[in-house]
Amino acid sequence: MKVKLKDGERLDDLQRNGYRIIQDPQRFCFGMDAVLLCGFADIKENARVMDLGTGTGVIPILLAARTQAASFVGLEVQEESADMAARSVRLNDLEDKIRIQTGNLKDASKVFGASSFDVVLSNPPYMNDRHGLKNPRPELAIARHEVLCNLGDVVREAAALLVPGGKFFMVHRPFRLPEIMEVMRKYKLEPKRMRLVYPKITKEPNMVLIEGVRGGRARMKVEKPLIIYDEDGNYNEEIYWIYDAEGASDQTPGGENS
Amino acid sequence: MKVKLKDGERLDDLQRNGYRIIQDPQRFCFGMDAVLLCGFADIKENARVMDLGTGTGVIPILLAARTQAASFVGLEVQEESADMAARSVRLNDLEDKIRIQTGNLKDASKVFGASSFDVVLSNPPYMNDRHGLKNPRPELAIARHEVLCNLGDVVREAAALLVPGGKFFMVHRPFRLPEIMEVMRKYKLEPKRMRLVYPKITKEPNMVLIEGVRGGRARMKVEKPLIIYDEDGNYNEEIYWIYDAEGASDQTPGGENS
Repeated sequence: MKVKLKDGERLDDLQRNGYRIIQDPQRFCFGMDAVLLCGFADIKENARVMDLGTGTGVIPILLAARTQAASFVGLEVQEESADMAARSVRLNDLEDKIRIQTGNLKDASKVFGASSFDVVLSNPPYMNDRHGLKNPRPELAIARHEVLCNLGDVVREAAALLVPGGKFFMVHRPFRLPEIMEVMRKYKLEPKRMRLVYPKITKEPNMVLIEGVRGGRARMKVEKPLIIYDEDGNYNEEIYWIYDAEGASDQTPGGENS
Repeated sequence: MKVKLKDGERLDDLQRNGYRIIQDPQRFCFGMDAVLLCGFADIKENARVMDLGTGTGVIPILLAARTQAASFVGLEVQEESADMAARSVRLNDLEDKIRIQTGNLKDASKVFGASSFDVVLSNPPYMNDRHGLKNPRPELAIARHEVLCNLGDVVREAAALLVPGGKFFMVHRPFRLPEIMEVMRKYKLEPKRMRLVYPKITKEPNMVLIEGVRGGRARMKVEKPLIIYDEDGNYNEEIYWIYDAEGASDQTPGGENS
């Protein structure tokens, strides 16, 4: 095998193109959030794509398999995560398409230049100081809580990195929607499309997928609900379709973020 | 009968407390929107309640039947609508509880004074100049399009009329959610609860119910979907419950706004 696993790391099958990904159960492992974000994102041929806070690198790796984008940058503030993501890229022979870079997304537009991407994605930390207990392990706290960057930073940098008309795709928690919409409008990243993800039809949504267009006009399409489980507790058809995991039953990669 | 119907007016049964309402098919007739808003609103005993743009007066009349509020004001800019609403109030012997007042909601806080209500509701015009064709009949255009007031006016006046901690309940179209959330936050009417209304589980939502709290902290609860029709095209249980129309089948009052 062309890359080395470190102690405690494991290799997970992405069930797409034979791609695999390195994860460390002690660190942030990707969840359904990232996979649904990839399914939601609408990425054109030859697009230059940025993933702000790439973590394991799962988003650019999955999108390299399912789109005709020209190139991806995965920006990650944690050195160890970036190193792990870069090894996953090499493992899948994707070095020509995906570049993993270490750095704080707060500085992204300074480092990469304004209007340098057609698409920006993010699966950012969901919680701020008022939302739940911070994990005592800093590598997990940084991924989940707004320790090193906040919602405003993500949206401001996304807007700056995008070309006019460029698209931003984010997954987040529904309870933060008012802040999300306010800050997106503040930075002229108009919310144009939204989909709420409900665990079951009888439950409150636990994720929201949102698309913004730099300089877009005010008018948002709210899509039909995305419902994870049917009444019998099985994944709905659409979830299989998004994962594109032929013959998968309960083997979909990633459950909740962990 | 104690009030007179004018030419073209009809009397509709509200299926609650024996209440009836006068409507004119040539003017704006209330729809499911208003009924769902009443079901969504959480109104405490002795509350002083304002309905901004009351139209037929359906909202205060329905809420007089289902809450223990102290008093209601229904503010309506169109003289003829206000007259019709006032006659519906008299018809139901509700003059002690409901006062219908003619006036533009833009001036509401000047006329009624700041911090003078515990609850403000609104089923405002949904469309602005960029949204669909204006009805050539001005009485319908005013009810549907932002001709005499806009979203910013509604939210600004609601915020000014409410006591600190007072609640605002509005029904609107989902495509305007980003503007709604931005303007609510601008006027410190924090969006705290939202419910999307889907005609069917496989369709996009066509209404949104939203609750704001004056001076509330950022954190919104998105409720489970409200789905109008089941797979067989019948009303879902919850719709009957909201209408509280015993034994009703397809006799629920009001369909689409008309």
